[in-house]
Amino acid sequence: MQEIKDKIRNIKDFPKKGIVFRDITTAIKDAETMKKIIDYFVEKFKDQKIDYVAGPESRGFIFGMPVAYQLGCGFIPIRKPGKLPAETISIEYDLEYGTDKIEMHKDAIEPGSRVLLMDDLLATGGTAAACVDLINSVGKVVGAGFMIELVGLGGMEKLPSDIQIETMVKFDEN
Amino acid sequence: MQEIKDKIRNIKDFPKKGIVFRDITTAIKDAETMKKIIDYFVEKFKDQKIDYVAGPESRGFIFGMPVAYQLGCGFIPIRKPGKLPAETISIEYDLEYGTDKIEMHKDAIEPGSRVLLMDDLLATGGTAAACVDLINSVGKVVGAGFMIELVGLGGMEKLPSDIQIETMVKFDEN
Repeated sequence: MQEIKDKIRNIKDFPKKGIVFRDITTAIKDAETMKKIIDYFVEKFKDQKIDYVAGPESRGFIFGMPVAYQLGCGFIPIRKPGKLPAETISIEYDLEYGTDKIEMHKDAIEPGSRVLLMDDLLATGGTAAACVDLINSVGKVVGAGFMIELVGLGGMEKLPSDIQIETMVKFDEN
Repeated sequence: MQEIKDKIRNIKDFPKKGIVFRDITTAIKDAETMKKIIDYFVEKFKDQKIDYVAGPESRGFIFGMPVAYQLGCGFIPIRKPGKLPAETISIEYDLEYGTDKIEMHKDAIEPGSRVLLMDDLLATGGTAAACVDLINSVGKVVGAGFMIELVGLGGMEKLPSDIQIETMVKFDEN
């Protein structure tokens, strides 16, 4: 995966001092790299009988939609409050400072549907765990895929231990 | 296209009174419909020698990424201010009340690159025209694809007349 890692741009002190931001735009603008990323997750999850791929706003859309297309599934957007127009279910979760909230359409998935969660980054796992809880209130998350894992921030421990979790590129942020 | 149109959910008075919101989430959650939408644009633009597909935050990501994957191109996100971590170019444009601003990474595309703009909706054309101007300051927009066109709001007239424009489903909002 070094060739993929090399395509990620590292930006110091963004969005704030002390953070190294892992910029995926340099990876997805390269057609060959982008294809490798999508194909990696399609290959990993192709035997999981996925009904839907879900992804949180907005980089989850970037990876979720092409994976859904390739797996022959529909795509479910998980969004910030006020963006989805029909009736929603929502979940609030803790951030470092304060709380955040995400929503999904109430009728987005049928009860018992097998769902793959896709996002760009697994860090502390707060958003990912909230997405899992939200989806599991109706269906069942059977897999989760993240292009990048920031190892050492505890994200893996926040996710259910009985699902297939795949991360493609790892950075040691410990 | 009636079968695609039937998959779009119409929500009255969202986000404000008098507006009928065209909800695409019901279309993209249906695997067959989603595939038809993506394949439609891939077929339309496959001979345009596209270098990059660009899409504005965040529903432009939904349609732009799978089209880019299928065309064998990279994808360029166009974002609201403060979201892109590296050096950006930006453009301000008028809304009904006030102004808005969008950004693209300065080094996202090489000069002269042929770019396809993808988004969910063409309405008044304000965002689309701003995206075109932003991209054209470095490369060249050769095509634009929108899943939905709200006919009668003047969007088409805001776009360059020398590019290929494709809209899949039309609603008369006149």
